Amino acid sequence: MSDRVHRTAAVLAVGDEIVRGEKLDTNSSWISARLTDRGIEVVEHATLADDQDAIARAIGDLCGRVDLVIITGGLGPTPDDLTRAAIAQAVNRQLIEDKDALDTIRTWFERSGHPMPELNRVQALKPEGAAHLDNPLGTAPGLHLPGDDRRSDVFCLPGPPREMKPMFASCVAPALNPPPDHSITTRLIHTVGLGESSVAERLGALMDRDRNPVVGTTASGGIVTCRLRQTGENALATLDDLEREVRHRLGLYVFGSGEQTIQSTVLDLLRERRMTLAVVESCTGGGLGATLTTVPGSSDVFLGGWITYSDRMKRRQVRVPTAVIESDGEVSRACAEAMAVGGLAESGASACVAITGIAGPGGGTDDKPVGTVWICVAIAGEEARAKLDARRFCFPSDRAGVRRVSVIWALAMLRLSLLPDSGSSGLALACEQESARSVAPAPPPA
Amino acid sequence: MSDRVHRTAAVLAVGDEIVRGEKLDTNSSWISARLTDRGIEVVEHATLADDQDAIARAIGDLCGRVDLVIITGGLGPTPDDLTRAAIAQAVNRQLIEDKDALDTIRTWFERSGHPMPELNRVQALKPEGAAHLDNPLGTAPGLHLPGDDRRSDVFCLPGPPREMKPMFASCVAPALNPPPDHSITTRLIHTVGLGESSVAERLGALMDRDRNPVVGTTASGGIVTCRLRQTGENALATLDDLEREVRHRLGLYVFGSGEQTIQSTVLDLLRERRMTLAVVESCTGGGLGATLTTVPGSSDVFLGGWITYSDRMKRRQVRVPTAVIESDGEVSRACAEAMAVGGLAESGASACVAITGIAGPGGGTDDKPVGTVWICVAIAGEEARAKLDARRFCFPSDRAGVRRVSVIWALAMLRLSLLPDSGSSGLALACEQESARSVAPAPPPA
Repeated sequence: MSDRVHRTAAVLAVGDEIVRGEKLDTNSSWISARLTDRGIEVVEHATLADDQDAIARAIGDLCGRVDLVIITGGLGPTPDDLTRAAIAQAVNRQLIEDKDALDTIRTWFERSGHPMPELNRVQALKPEGAAHLDNPLGTAPGLHLPGDDRRSDVFCLPGPPREMKPMFASCVAPALNPPPDHSITTRLIHTVGLGESSVAERLGALMDRDRNPVVGTTASGGIVTCRLRQTGENALATLDDLEREVRHRLGLYVFGSGEQTIQSTVLDLLRERRMTLAVVESCTGGGLGATLTTVPGSSDVFLGGWITYSDRMKRRQVRVPTAVIESDGEVSRACAEAMAVGGLAESGASACVAITGIAGPGGGTDDKPVGTVWICVAIAGEEARAKLDARRFCFPSDRAGVRRVSVIWALAMLRLSLLPDSGSSGLALACEQESARSVAPAPPPA
Repeated sequence: MSDRVHRTAAVLAVGDEIVRGEKLDTNSSWISARLTDRGIEVVEHATLADDQDAIARAIGDLCGRVDLVIITGGLGPTPDDLTRAAIAQAVNRQLIEDKDALDTIRTWFERSGHPMPELNRVQALKPEGAAHLDNPLGTAPGLHLPGDDRRSDVFCLPGPPREMKPMFASCVAPALNPPPDHSITTRLIHTVGLGESSVAERLGALMDRDRNPVVGTTASGGIVTCRLRQTGENALATLDDLEREVRHRLGLYVFGSGEQTIQSTVLDLLRERRMTLAVVESCTGGGLGATLTTVPGSSDVFLGGWITYSDRMKRRQVRVPTAVIESDGEVSRACAEAMAVGGLAESGASACVAITGIAGPGGGTDDKPVGTVWICVAIAGEEARAKLDARRFCFPSDRAGVRRVSVIWALAMLRLSLLPDSGSSGLALACEQESARSVAPAPPPA
């Protein structure tokens, strides 16, 4: 092992099936997350076909630019497994047979009651100066070629994740040498209800690229996540200050951090308040229930609900008055409120969320274009009266997008109506067009 | 557009969150599969951090080595979105504002009832000589920089897959210029109910890598897709023969081809038979309904259903007898059948699918381990009697996997019970442990 400090790293994946898109490479992402956690800056991933010259060229290039190169794939026994030869070519060394590695491979086959096919003999080859890394779960040993002052350390692991992961833990992780002054600490703050650019406007200079700590944002299906990243010492104290500032600027739009999701947050709020939840879904077709039940243990809060995709289901199952459907239509404030109130009464839950809208591509009109969605949150109150919060949205997206964001915004509305700050439910949400808060008597349970 | 032939291509993904392993890049694989299908050889993927110099350097390098470069990510409105500037730097051009693009972005915000934040103005920038690509689903337009004899064509698309995919189809695919002598024709055959290795066993030598045409398989959430690929001329006739052979070997497990999904296939079968559908979901929490309603126009067949996550919902809403829950439990043949029969009667639909199981991580027992799922299909018959097909599965997966595969297998069972071949419903499905077919009187509608 060289005593080279690993400030920067690159991760290489090798295989025709990956570069052609027949197989998704998850190794590079998995390895990068672990290097980042240890304070090593991953600057690049590359994926290459089974082409020895191309692999050798990439390794040679990266070896001069980063401190650490980790390669997965191309260590199998077949003629299209070329990583061993490519490393030797890149660093201009001979390939030699490692007797111990050969014995290990032979033993591996004997244990499985078969003689070793001659084909597997190539797996015992290694570039001069490299060391084999033991693979307890397969025939392909890994490789480690120590670096020097001109060349980075190179580790090579087999492609199958179930072989690669334990080998990373046992052979690579202990050899990592991150810079002591360069530990990276990351924190995630999740928001809902604002567009990515509105979040960025509120964060302002906090997002300047040259700051340390720096804030970046990523948006996914209605959730905007702020990544706070600090390089160097005393990260915790600095990140605490930054997180306080970020939370201050984003206010009630912040719903959680780290591993929390909007659905886990909402379920926790309900659990704290000893409340139960039901849903009544039209255009989302069950997506809200499916999202809530991704959380293990959601059953102690979530009772279930209705997919009232047809008007008959709306009328019969949650007793939406026929008059409402005839006068206001199925996508209307009155219908959303009736669905929520009916679901509340029928389920006996203490909260109910209803969604009705036009996901498209068809069904839009001038006053109710595709993307028009009414969401109503009903909270059981005194004397069988329910507090209602109904909002109309217009999501500029396709069918899948309208449905996905409807689910997220419904959870955001439920969260707001559960927050102690009474004014909070007045918070405007992105794409919101019309609001109404009222109180309605809940029909008696059937 | 240059008339440069696209023999080789490279795919670039840009984003700190990707290179650090916080987010898995699926775009590069998706794009590569489509380029490969069209006969363009993808030689490399690269993933880079939000570092303008590094992105520019990689673009400059690749532009000289391949005929086509496709970039995803870094087109957002925030300061860490640097792809626009990096392309300009790589080809030594100025960034200029595109008035039409700016108007489009403004309009996009107006449609959602909000003024455009100043921040989004940068999304209207483009390198001199580049053209913007319309993004109907987001604020970030794509970019196309035509190549010349020294430099490859460069396309740049936004990172979110739901924006990127339609833009690839509408803006990139039509501009692709694969070498005429190397045309590749691909056909997709979809199966459900068999594991990937069982499919491979049935295909046997058809999967040998050196054949032309060749068959490859990819498995995703219970669906195994066979990719038939022919290189060279007269592909259609050859692929017709191969498809016939593949369908023969896989029999009734084949449900569709091309763009068809299991849910669209099932909805079409129901529509042909003038039947309607309801669902009763426990462990999937609405996922079956959500999957069915991904299909536009599903409302003419799918009436809706119940998310009976609690036993109270099972008893009250679809009238599962308390005795059944007390004697057999909520995860049992009797409960699944009662859910399906109750849903049939309550909804008035002509078919109903019920799912009840243990998704985990908790709740497993010795005789009902995590992954145990009962699925029942009820088809309305003569004199209010229903034909029932109930099956017990044990899915060896995590919570998300058990839920996802339960939805797919439920659709597979429904499909089998709708097929003309009466014996077909006897077909065994992967992970199936126990079957029961019976007839039950449906309770009268409430």
